[in-house]
Amino acid sequence: MASLGDIGVSAAINILGAFAFLLAFALLRIQPINDRVYFPKWYISGGRTSPRNTGNFVGKFVNLNFKTYLTFLNWMPQAMKMSEAEIIDHAGLDSAVFLRIYVLGLKIFGPIAIVALLVLVPVNVSDGTLFFLSKDLVVNNIDKLSISNVRPKSIKFFAHISMEFLFTFWTCYMLYKEYDRVASMRLRFLASQRRRAEQFTVLVRNVPHASGHSVSDSVENFFQTNHPDHYLCHQAVYNANKFAKLVRKRERLQNWLDYNQLKFERHPEKRPNSKKGFLGLWGESVDSIDYYKQQIKELDKRLTMERQKVLKDPKSIMSAAFVSFNSRWGAAVCAQTQQSKNPTLWLTHWAPEPRDVYWKNLAIPFVSLSIRKLVISLLVFALVFFYMIPIAFVQSLANLDGLEKVAPFLRPVIELDFIKSFLQGFLPGLALKIFLYILPTVLMFMSKVEGHVALSVLERRAAAKYYYFMLVNVFLGSIVTGTAFQQLHAFLHQSPTQIPRTIGVSIPMKATFFITYIMVDGWAGIAGEILRLKPLVIFHLKNMLLVKTERDKEKAMNPGGVDFPETLPSLQLYFLLGIVYAVVTPILLPFILVFFAFAYFVYRHQIINVYNQQYESAAAFWPHIHSRIIASLLISQLLLLGLLSTKKAANSTPLLVALPILTLSFHKYCKNRFEPAFRKYPLEEAMAKDRDDRASEPDVNLKAYLADAYLHPIFRSFEEVELVEVRIDKSQTHVPSAPASEPTSPSPPHYAHHHEGAPHNVHHYDFEPPAYNAYRYEVGPPGDVYHYDVESPQHAYRY
Amino acid sequence: MASLGDIGVSAAINILGAFAFLLAFALLRIQPINDRVYFPKWYISGGRTSPRNTGNFVGKFVNLNFKTYLTFLNWMPQAMKMSEAEIIDHAGLDSAVFLRIYVLGLKIFGPIAIVALLVLVPVNVSDGTLFFLSKDLVVNNIDKLSISNVRPKSIKFFAHISMEFLFTFWTCYMLYKEYDRVASMRLRFLASQRRRAEQFTVLVRNVPHASGHSVSDSVENFFQTNHPDHYLCHQAVYNANKFAKLVRKRERLQNWLDYNQLKFERHPEKRPNSKKGFLGLWGESVDSIDYYKQQIKELDKRLTMERQKVLKDPKSIMSAAFVSFNSRWGAAVCAQTQQSKNPTLWLTHWAPEPRDVYWKNLAIPFVSLSIRKLVISLLVFALVFFYMIPIAFVQSLANLDGLEKVAPFLRPVIELDFIKSFLQGFLPGLALKIFLYILPTVLMFMSKVEGHVALSVLERRAAAKYYYFMLVNVFLGSIVTGTAFQQLHAFLHQSPTQIPRTIGVSIPMKATFFITYIMVDGWAGIAGEILRLKPLVIFHLKNMLLVKTERDKEKAMNPGGVDFPETLPSLQLYFLLGIVYAVVTPILLPFILVFFAFAYFVYRHQIINVYNQQYESAAAFWPHIHSRIIASLLISQLLLLGLLSTKKAANSTPLLVALPILTLSFHKYCKNRFEPAFRKYPLEEAMAKDRDDRASEPDVNLKAYLADAYLHPIFRSFEEVELVEVRIDKSQTHVPSAPASEPTSPSPPHYAHHHEGAPHNVHHYDFEPPAYNAYRYEVGPPGDVYHYDVESPQHAYRY
Repeated sequence: MASLGDIGVSAAINILGAFAFLLAFALLRIQPINDRVYFPKWYISGGRTSPRNTGNFVGKFVNLNFKTYLTFLNWMPQAMKMSEAEIIDHAGLDSAVFLRIYVLGLKIFGPIAIVALLVLVPVNVSDGTLFFLSKDLVVNNIDKLSISNVRPKSIKFFAHISMEFLFTFWTCYMLYKEYDRVASMRLRFLASQRRRAEQFTVLVRNVPHASGHSVSDSVENFFQTNHPDHYLCHQAVYNANKFAKLVRKRERLQNWLDYNQLKFERHPEKRPNSKKGFLGLWGESVDSIDYYKQQIKELDKRLTMERQKVLKDPKSIMSAAFVSFNSRWGAAVCAQTQQSKNPTLWLTHWAPEPRDVYWKNLAIPFVSLSIRKLVISLLVFALVFFYMIPIAFVQSLANLDGLEKVAPFLRPVIELDFIKSFLQGFLPGLALKIFLYILPTVLMFMSKVEGHVALSVLERRAAAKYYYFMLVNVFLGSIVTGTAFQQLHAFLHQSPTQIPRTIGVSIPMKATFFITYIMVDGWAGIAGEILRLKPLVIFHLKNMLLVKTERDKEKAMNPGGVDFPETLPSLQLYFLLGIVYAVVTPILLPFILVFFAFAYFVYRHQIINVYNQQYESAAAFWPHIHSRIIASLLISQLLLLGLLSTKKAANSTPLLVALPILTLSFHKYCKNRFEPAFRKYPLEEAMAKDRDDRASEPDVNLKAYLADAYLHPIFRSFEEVELVEVRIDKSQTHVPSAPASEPTSPSPPHYAHHHEGAPHNVHHYDFEPPAYNAYRYEVGPPGDVYHYDVESPQHAYRY
Repeated sequence: MASLGDIGVSAAINILGAFAFLLAFALLRIQPINDRVYFPKWYISGGRTSPRNTGNFVGKFVNLNFKTYLTFLNWMPQAMKMSEAEIIDHAGLDSAVFLRIYVLGLKIFGPIAIVALLVLVPVNVSDGTLFFLSKDLVVNNIDKLSISNVRPKSIKFFAHISMEFLFTFWTCYMLYKEYDRVASMRLRFLASQRRRAEQFTVLVRNVPHASGHSVSDSVENFFQTNHPDHYLCHQAVYNANKFAKLVRKRERLQNWLDYNQLKFERHPEKRPNSKKGFLGLWGESVDSIDYYKQQIKELDKRLTMERQKVLKDPKSIMSAAFVSFNSRWGAAVCAQTQQSKNPTLWLTHWAPEPRDVYWKNLAIPFVSLSIRKLVISLLVFALVFFYMIPIAFVQSLANLDGLEKVAPFLRPVIELDFIKSFLQGFLPGLALKIFLYILPTVLMFMSKVEGHVALSVLERRAAAKYYYFMLVNVFLGSIVTGTAFQQLHAFLHQSPTQIPRTIGVSIPMKATFFITYIMVDGWAGIAGEILRLKPLVIFHLKNMLLVKTERDKEKAMNPGGVDFPETLPSLQLYFLLGIVYAVVTPILLPFILVFFAFAYFVYRHQIINVYNQQYESAAAFWPHIHSRIIASLLISQLLLLGLLSTKKAANSTPLLVALPILTLSFHKYCKNRFEPAFRKYPLEEAMAKDRDDRASEPDVNLKAYLADAYLHPIFRSFEEVELVEVRIDKSQTHVPSAPASEPTSPSPPHYAHHHEGAPHNVHHYDFEPPAYNAYRYEVGPPGDVYHYDVESPQHAYRY
């Protein structure tokens, strides 16, 4: 175990590492060539143009202003300049509230750290039971500052108990204030928003199939009957999943075509070739440009057919619809009430933002949803507790003797020295690494199978699953030896009162491990976050291979948003560590404080300069944050109870038993008091906003405004596809028979826009389904230009 | 332990006892003098007049028609004659659905009993491990038919496991069908009801206090702003608790006055005297009639003052109101939505029926409610697990040595032989008996403290608490030896997997105990139910002492309703026993079947002829019935799991583990599918009913209809009191200064009605708060006669 000195060395190394990252960041960010990697948000919001347009040739790539090198930490004060209101304006409420979590961490742990260090450390040190033991035997200096140093049955435990009370009350007080503040921020944010489609729209699922009526007719009938004064219009949902697949395929082909054309442009002396077979590795060699053009043409035909099928086949209309009302009040009423006698039909919920909708899940029927939820929760349970089994199996393969027995034909290969050392040294770790790397994707996939219809909900569900995984495998797994499965087995065969004792008694011993964990995972991880090494590399690769126009460049720089499904659970783990160790080993708290402060700076900078959230949920994740911190409090109380009972301070039990009860009541109160603000929309608010609207704009045509807000992406893409077809037809074969819809096609400006700066005769196809990463569709007067951003490829599975 | 023969004897005794009860019932019910005890429902509904009006003098008291004595069981076919639809008409949906629970029991356990007896008993008998043991050592014949008889590790356990699967599926199937049926019955019942105040009314609680505005103004403002198209009117709620106390006191005095006047009438030669002191046992002797008249007069003055205070003091207006809407749709919307930004203000719920309202709890603020719930749940927990502690203390006093030590001054008394034997033989049992007797009252009191605002909810909550008590103390307490507290202690120190084993292994051994329990508590209890011994005695006592008029007689015969808080939990316990023992000791099932069949007949008879429900909740208790049967399934599965693991059939574990998961999923599905029908009111229904109403009665004055539906009882009583005062004033002192409201007093017919058949110059005061047992206020055109029924004294605590 590490002594205080070792921790110091480790801290020094990590601090140096973090500084190295920061230095690298400071150097890279002021290079004009990297400007789009480190300031994409400003490009998107239109507040920045490329610094490469000014200056000489070298200045386009390297920063020649040496003064800027001297102030390499000046991003920190810059990041602090923006006020919270400005951040909400600039990046949305989600981001602003996300930053508040870090501030909350500082507010909770700052005073706790001071009190704990001033009170508990002297108490712990003064008892000194551990001084009698040999220094290098079991204990270390950290332990001397912890509760382990207090001798059993000591009266001093009352200091710890009263501190636990104090910390619990302080944490609850801060949580209450913060929940109050976030809830009112949310309501103010919602109230301050200008007219938005989702305020008037309700998602209706499980529309029953009436024979002889289409889904559209049923919806129209039902809502005209039951909401006669408020119903406005509705939009059907089409099952366009197959179409979307074809579109994605076309996108890939188009990328290859672009790549080859670019290659040809740069080296006009040689037309690029490619092979038809698997991955372009073998098969007949053909002219790439012609080949891909041909392929795209074929695909366009299939797209047209598929489109016809979707539009004409009544089966492709899903039993769901977006129903719009003529007032927020009407929508609020419909979203919160039960519509039909059969409560599994006509299910109404608030519609997510148009860009937040996850279209694919809209068609899942009610029964299937229940089964999916059950299956997925069983799978998550299995994943959390038994994930080591397949990994252990893979690792057992790395046992060469075992591998040779399983597959004797591999023996000659394995016996090679190079392969042998690779397998022995690398494979065991590799399996685990790969698993942990793909885990978030797996969890997101599971959430999708569960059937949630909004990206924001999907991310929250994935975050919840990741939190359970971290709680069991990182927190408990580090404290109790053995795999999660062994722990589960042990816990099932222990009495409920024994479990907190087993864990509690190991808690102080693991303090050094967690301090190291905070430094490696927390400090270094945050420094890596600001460096953005992966996006930097990918951006430059894309720039070299694919980018032709300014628009392509914009696509290549798409920064995505804060990765909530991974960030929030880690954050919650730090809260857990801080709360658990506040009483046990207070020396851990300063490390957590440094993490929170540092992460706050970094994420503030990133949110201002980099990230561009793809949806706005108005801080809908806050109740989860709140309840997980409450859960941390409960865990810490139980573990302290267990720890003290091993210290034979059993007469303190009644005192400590009161705490979980009080904490739970506090939680219940908060849930009643604040959670409805995150789940429902009060009629008072809706009515006030309606009235304001009517006063300020009495003659707005709401129906026109809402008509295509939730139009299924397939319809938008049809316009594009038709235009493309026509254009291709006209320019290449001059076939006069344009499709019937062509003359009424409403928006020639779109198409013109797509070809800005693309003088070569290539159509750049940029259909884009709205669920994609950076879908931004701005409703405006008909003459406006529509913006479409491309989805980033790693998000392609979202559709 | 009892052998099969002992069980037979016990069964014979109990069957004979039950027959004796039935015979007594058959004889008593055909005596005209008891007619009002055994057929009160028909008197109340007006379908029966006293048979004493016909025939000679003896025939008024004793049935002289000897033919009727021969067919003493003919109430059974009579009870079966009414169809379910007629029962709903006659007694309401609550009663009809209550009867369905017994039918459900028969449906579930009938087929299970046949299959279990045909399949499992042969399987159990054939193995015969227990035949080797000495017959009178441990086991008995019952055990030979049970799972105990199968040898460990036997393959035959798969018969039991597959039966458990089969029974679970069968039970779930029946539950599903029944839930479906009850839900649609409920919706049909609600749809078929004619216009009722509660369909248009919402109870609003936690109205915020705005300075400068009264609560009424706030309510008016808020709902006119936020429900402008639907708000109609509202009725404030007054804090009349003190007033009601005075009224109750007046009622008691009036009873004494009536009693004394009756005594005087019957024996005019002697004016009755009474003593002023405590309980009339000592103090100055006075003329009773004058004394009580004087007292009542004084009380009337205080009532007037209190009434003025309530009406004029703004503090007596509670922060709650009944808000009425102009359509069911508007009310449904308001009840189901969140009104205010602060979700603890303007809480809206469906208003209970006017006669179902529990006025006293309407003023409890939100924070207090949370705390009350917490405190009461802790108290219930303590009551369930630690109730034996005070009882054991009382019992320890019965240990005479102990008592003498505690109170040595009592020694001379205790040493008396009579006292000694009384204390030793009677006191220990007495304490427990008294506790169990007052337990339902205590639980009801606790539910009231929790702050529910409807009698139906109060009864459901009390029933839930009683169920927990029975589950722990009757079911678990009988299986595991030791007090509930010792069990709790043991369970806390056992592993979670050990608990089902500990209980499971004792299960088969307790079968004989539970068979006896079913016969004593079930069979005999039901036979006692039909005999109605207590109401019979009370009716005749009242008849002798208090009854003067036909109306008084009606009051005296008030039958009350089915005692849900006690009946439902016992019923659920029988379900639990049946489900747990179906696989373990199938021989128990016929006893349960007999109970269900017998109870079904009896309650059918009682509901048709006796009970008069004081409120109609439209089967709102069904979700509780359903979920407790599901809980019974889960318990049985866990216990079988534990039992089999002690039988070393551990390889069956995975099979059995699937069952609880499936059962829970089924429960969740049912909850989603059916429970909203019991909690919400679908807009589709509301709208359809509104439309029907508008078509059939387009010009009804809804505002007038709703104006005083939820008028606080204090206002109704004021009318009465004022009239009373005036009348007394006029007839006794001829003081001309009648109160100001007298000339406008709207309903002289009321008063006239009260004095029908009361020629003597005594005012019979029958104010009656609406929360009382038999409050029936029928809204009708102004000329109609109002019915008031008196509350039964045992329900007086309800106010």
